[in-house]
Amino acid sequence: MLIVQKYGGTSVGNAERIQNVAKRVLETQKQGHQVVVVVSAMSGETNRLIDLAHQVSKEPDSREYDQLVSTGEQVTIALLALAIKEIGGKAISYQGHQVRITTDNSYSKARIKKIDADFIRKDLDEGRIVVIAGFQGVDEEGNITTLGRGGSDTTGVAIAAALKADACEIYTDVDGVYTTDPRIVPQAKKIPRISYDEMLELASLGAKVLQIRSVEMAAKYKVPLWVKSSFNNTEGTLVTSEDQQMEDVIISGIAYDKNEAKIAVRRLADKPGIASQLFAPLAESNINIDVIIQNISADGFTDLTFTVPRTDLTKALRIVEKTAKEIGCEKIETDEKIAKVSVVGVGMRSHSGVAAKMFQTLAQEKINIMMISTSEIKISVVIQEADMDRAVKALHKVFIET
Amino acid sequence: MLIVQKYGGTSVGNAERIQNVAKRVLETQKQGHQVVVVVSAMSGETNRLIDLAHQVSKEPDSREYDQLVSTGEQVTIALLALAIKEIGGKAISYQGHQVRITTDNSYSKARIKKIDADFIRKDLDEGRIVVIAGFQGVDEEGNITTLGRGGSDTTGVAIAAALKADACEIYTDVDGVYTTDPRIVPQAKKIPRISYDEMLELASLGAKVLQIRSVEMAAKYKVPLWVKSSFNNTEGTLVTSEDQQMEDVIISGIAYDKNEAKIAVRRLADKPGIASQLFAPLAESNINIDVIIQNISADGFTDLTFTVPRTDLTKALRIVEKTAKEIGCEKIETDEKIAKVSVVGVGMRSHSGVAAKMFQTLAQEKINIMMISTSEIKISVVIQEADMDRAVKALHKVFIET
Repeated sequence: MLIVQKYGGTSVGNAERIQNVAKRVLETQKQGHQVVVVVSAMSGETNRLIDLAHQVSKEPDSREYDQLVSTGEQVTIALLALAIKEIGGKAISYQGHQVRITTDNSYSKARIKKIDADFIRKDLDEGRIVVIAGFQGVDEEGNITTLGRGGSDTTGVAIAAALKADACEIYTDVDGVYTTDPRIVPQAKKIPRISYDEMLELASLGAKVLQIRSVEMAAKYKVPLWVKSSFNNTEGTLVTSEDQQMEDVIISGIAYDKNEAKIAVRRLADKPGIASQLFAPLAESNINIDVIIQNISADGFTDLTFTVPRTDLTKALRIVEKTAKEIGCEKIETDEKIAKVSVVGVGMRSHSGVAAKMFQTLAQEKINIMMISTSEIKISVVIQEADMDRAVKALHKVFIET
Repeated sequence: MLIVQKYGGTSVGNAERIQNVAKRVLETQKQGHQVVVVVSAMSGETNRLIDLAHQVSKEPDSREYDQLVSTGEQVTIALLALAIKEIGGKAISYQGHQVRITTDNSYSKARIKKIDADFIRKDLDEGRIVVIAGFQGVDEEGNITTLGRGGSDTTGVAIAAALKADACEIYTDVDGVYTTDPRIVPQAKKIPRISYDEMLELASLGAKVLQIRSVEMAAKYKVPLWVKSSFNNTEGTLVTSEDQQMEDVIISGIAYDKNEAKIAVRRLADKPGIASQLFAPLAESNINIDVIIQNISADGFTDLTFTVPRTDLTKALRIVEKTAKEIGCEKIETDEKIAKVSVVGVGMRSHSGVAAKMFQTLAQEKINIMMISTSEIKISVVIQEADMDRAVKALHKVFIET
């Protein structure tokens, strides 16, 4: 098999851990596999570099910033290749530009355009373990780019896709994807298999095990994606295409998100185009709107309520107030003390009654639902932040534990 | 003018010093010049990386080692470019491979083969300060190489040569080349102008201001080379082609070297080929022989005395003992407590009596001369290490101060 393994910053945090990764990688090769390893910067290193940048520049130029922070991964690849050689393996390290990971030129959030797979295959065929720097690439002009925080996951999946690898294994400090956060619900169970779509919902809803883009890319190229622990040998979670087995499980997980805030615009004149007038300036300012609720109109007026990332609330409010002045409204209310709780599962498609059961469970807990939003495979509710833990526990009990 | 400036590790040792370099560079540009800046790794950084390598590998593979240590310069170029932009300048940073510094593939001691000057000129013509990583390059296959300790000087001169720059300024923590080491002779004076040949003799004899290869390259391409301080604005030393003015000065400097050891092979059979038999195995082991003296033969026997780097003495002795067993000799003696003192000057060519004056001075000081070696522009003597300071002082007094 051809396996791509990705190790994050904590897994390569010091010389000893790098030696540990070297052992695991070499063992995998000795089991008869071809192995490509993608690594992040040693934990703490990227922050050290960012700190240096801020010592000389208040708002660092993004090209130079990428030139700087990409050194973090370069250090790790060289050290890992050295560690593999030290224990008798054959290894070679490559930076993004060396293995021709071509990206667009959006510094600090570049997107991969193509990877020269033949280049890597040649080394694999000669028995080498190929160690590749995650997070970084090069644009058409030869400028170094980076893919954004967590970009090493994306590098791993992109390389697996380019090589048509049999598996992409993401090694991290947790041993898989759980039905919910074990810190809130000790009964949370590891999910053995999950679909790409479910993983996307869980990731975007706050279960931050995998970078969303890497899951999207895995889904697009049908790369079987494993989430595993780099500190033990337990099975992990396989993220893959939907299958019958998954549909039998109605709900895969309960996700939550405490990073949103709510804005309610009261008694807007209900005319065509009002929503677009309100949301266009927010989009232009790169503020992501999540849940949107428009009340049924009464006397020609309506209420529009929506959520934005909590960090963007001040900025969003300023924009909304400006628009509201132009189009007229009674008042604008905000609420930062909210949380979003979601039940996610592909089984929902073929099973009715999930929403009813969810609302009933929350009602029994006397939790007030402020907003509701649904997709084919998830139902989300916005509630008071103070109610969140109780909601997650109750929903986990009803949908997962029983 | 087109000026290449090179700043060493101590000159860019922290954020504040990098900001200081940014100011100097921008000032130079504002005086109407085009400026290329070559920088080393921040002082301490290369050692930190080497230490990491040794934590995972006893004898680090040289390709991976270069991949690792080259990150040091990459960090500095990005930070310097950021610092220049912060104070309103236009700057862009390039790694060796980005600016196409092509080398052979001798990792850790690579030699530059070519540099794509057009690439740099384009940025200069657009008003940018071009910041280039010293010490590093790329081989034809895209592997990262490094030029060896002090290689940033060579990068600076090579870029100056490729661009046909009007000057290459090497900024360091001393403010020029001195007539001898001021720590030994407080009366030592800064040399305003010196020829490439003299600089080579002074550099190779232990005045470690410039890397020898960079001076050789400057001589080959006739690059006017300035040695200046990055901490003040004094004039510095110009290393350039020989001219009449220089010849008027008979002796430019007194150099010394305490890093050699002496091996004497007594009563060798004096046959043709004996020297080659003795020295060939040393050359094969990459041991540099410096001074060699063969005594006049008596009764068909001769003595061969030579110096080797002190760090290679044990290894050299082992090799010589093996050879001596084959060819026969009376005994082998070694002496580590030696020093080489040299007077250097192009004026010597047209002035006789330098050697006589040197020997007379040492005789007056009752210093015993063990070996003598001469070239067109220098005379070296090997003496007891304990006599070295006195010898340097006396020679400086006679040749420089009067």
